Amino acid sequence: MKDLELTLFKYARIVDHYIYERLTGTPEELYKAALHLIKAGGKRLRPAIALLTARMLGGIEAESRAVPLAAAIEVSHNFTLIHDDIMDRDEYRRGVPTVHKIWGESWAILAGDLLHAYAYRFIVFSTDHGMSKGEAHEAMKVLTTAGIKVSRGQAYDLMFENRWDVTPVDYLDMVYHKTGAMMEASAKLGAIAARASNEVVELMGQYGNLLGVAFQVRDDYLGVFGDPKKTGKPIYNDVRRGKKTLLVLLTLSAADERDKELLMRVLDPRSEKSEEEVVRAAELMKKYNADVEAMRIATAYAEKAKEILRELRDVADPSARDILSFMADYAVTREK
Amino acid sequence: MKDLELTLFKYARIVDHYIYERLTGTPEELYKAALHLIKAGGKRLRPAIALLTARMLGGIEAESRAVPLAAAIEVSHNFTLIHDDIMDRDEYRRGVPTVHKIWGESWAILAGDLLHAYAYRFIVFSTDHGMSKGEAHEAMKVLTTAGIKVSRGQAYDLMFENRWDVTPVDYLDMVYHKTGAMMEASAKLGAIAARASNEVVELMGQYGNLLGVAFQVRDDYLGVFGDPKKTGKPIYNDVRRGKKTLLVLLTLSAADERDKELLMRVLDPRSEKSEEEVVRAAELMKKYNADVEAMRIATAYAEKAKEILRELRDVADPSARDILSFMADYAVTREK
Repeated sequence: MKDLELTLFKYARIVDHYIYERLTGTPEELYKAALHLIKAGGKRLRPAIALLTARMLGGIEAESRAVPLAAAIEVSHNFTLIHDDIMDRDEYRRGVPTVHKIWGESWAILAGDLLHAYAYRFIVFSTDHGMSKGEAHEAMKVLTTAGIKVSRGQAYDLMFENRWDVTPVDYLDMVYHKTGAMMEASAKLGAIAARASNEVVELMGQYGNLLGVAFQVRDDYLGVFGDPKKTGKPIYNDVRRGKKTLLVLLTLSAADERDKELLMRVLDPRSEKSEEEVVRAAELMKKYNADVEAMRIATAYAEKAKEILRELRDVADPSARDILSFMADYAVTREK
Repeated sequence: MKDLELTLFKYARIVDHYIYERLTGTPEELYKAALHLIKAGGKRLRPAIALLTARMLGGIEAESRAVPLAAAIEVSHNFTLIHDDIMDRDEYRRGVPTVHKIWGESWAILAGDLLHAYAYRFIVFSTDHGMSKGEAHEAMKVLTTAGIKVSRGQAYDLMFENRWDVTPVDYLDMVYHKTGAMMEASAKLGAIAARASNEVVELMGQYGNLLGVAFQVRDDYLGVFGDPKKTGKPIYNDVRRGKKTLLVLLTLSAADERDKELLMRVLDPRSEKSEEEVVRAAELMKKYNADVEAMRIATAYAEKAKEILRELRDVADPSARDILSFMADYAVTREK
């Protein structure tokens, strides 16, 4: 845990420095809004995946080449957070009010769009950091693919709120698009910076994708069973909004008619519900072991991610591999 | 005029075909929302600038290489339209309801984000159309620069709504960012596809930028003095919303105290105003010759754009230059 924490801390400083140096301009208020969530904190997991993958496969030179790519991923991730917060009407994240809450929706849309453009801009800049134009082209392919998938995943997520026929498979596919795709891109970008073979780039993509799904299932778990003081997010928000998380889907498939009816009523975004009913809905998830089952699935994903790391031959820096492996454990055991 | 019309028609077919073939996926509803405004029409001026510039400087091979870049520009332009319509609360464009009006704000945000990612994706694809990776890298530099400027320009536009100290120079700078930058990018992308020298790329950038500003001033003019049946947009919307257009700024600087007071009251976004007052505010612009003066400024920009075209040596296709020159005249004389 300490190795991971130190790594995240070290990489966060490098990536933040890269971002803060370049994300400046006028009107200042727009840049302030765009940087608000980045400055509020965040784990910087995605850039760490990129930098660790680069180091693992190509040593410190590859790690240095990956810095603009890692910054691109973090900026792109924050763009999606700002826009998602508008759509989900979330008022707090990372312990601070969300961008649209402070600056209003128009500014939040624009701040997200600005970050989105800068993400690709940073990939362009990567040729000043030792990447060839061909490698930058590959990186651009990876980031645009992820960008498209994230929009599609968020669309599925919105659609699921009004659908009752969502299966756990649908959910995992949505989560792959919404969260897995960006972590897949993080690992692939790191591998590209390390000049790895296509095969290894693809393998690392799988690692990132599996880690991302595991991470998101844990996120949903913490949204119901986590400590809001640790997570920085209000509890039961997903329940109130009728999000079809894996916890919900597993409970619905196991519950008896009466419990199912209560849960569906509470999850209906248009229904009036008391705080007591929201708590009862959350308790139903425990009653039907959805918490245990969801974490069992998340852990299986994390284990597969670790398996991929073990498959890799000729690793330049085994200690980076150890941290990436630990990151998979962390994804499903973390409290925040 | 007929040459321009035929060119726009021919290029629109090529670019639309390129876009429709590639902009497909699930959920279908998201792609439908993303394509809604593109399918509703539009002049396809930006892709035409890219394709004409490429043909003028490099003949039909360059024109063919520029197709993905032209598609990228059109898709990027439509992303900004979808998001701007949310911010401006516009309900109609191109004679149809706007995306957020049909699908709601969340879907409109997502549809715009999807198009934004596809714009860069199409630049990546350009290497399948004869562009080298180095050229694609240059193209990416141009499109990311424009994307950042457009967000900044829109932010200035929003800020101006609540400011009374905006000068015509501030306005023209805002318009350069909001509209000029994307037309600048269109012309530059065409020049890059033609393998033109840096100097010619920059010159064509200036042509696009001047054309864009001329075009936008005419747009503001048509918003007040145009025929809504031709423009497809409701009349006086900018007045009602308190947009600080060049017409407004010129009127404010020339009006006597009483007229100024009326105009400022009508333009205040928070004020209650009758339709009659809105009409009177528009009439004030004619009274103080702001209509004539604004079009004089727009025409000066268009003339400068034409001058740049005349400066070019070694033009591969002079007929393309004639059409680009005519486009500058069209920008400031068009009725829709």
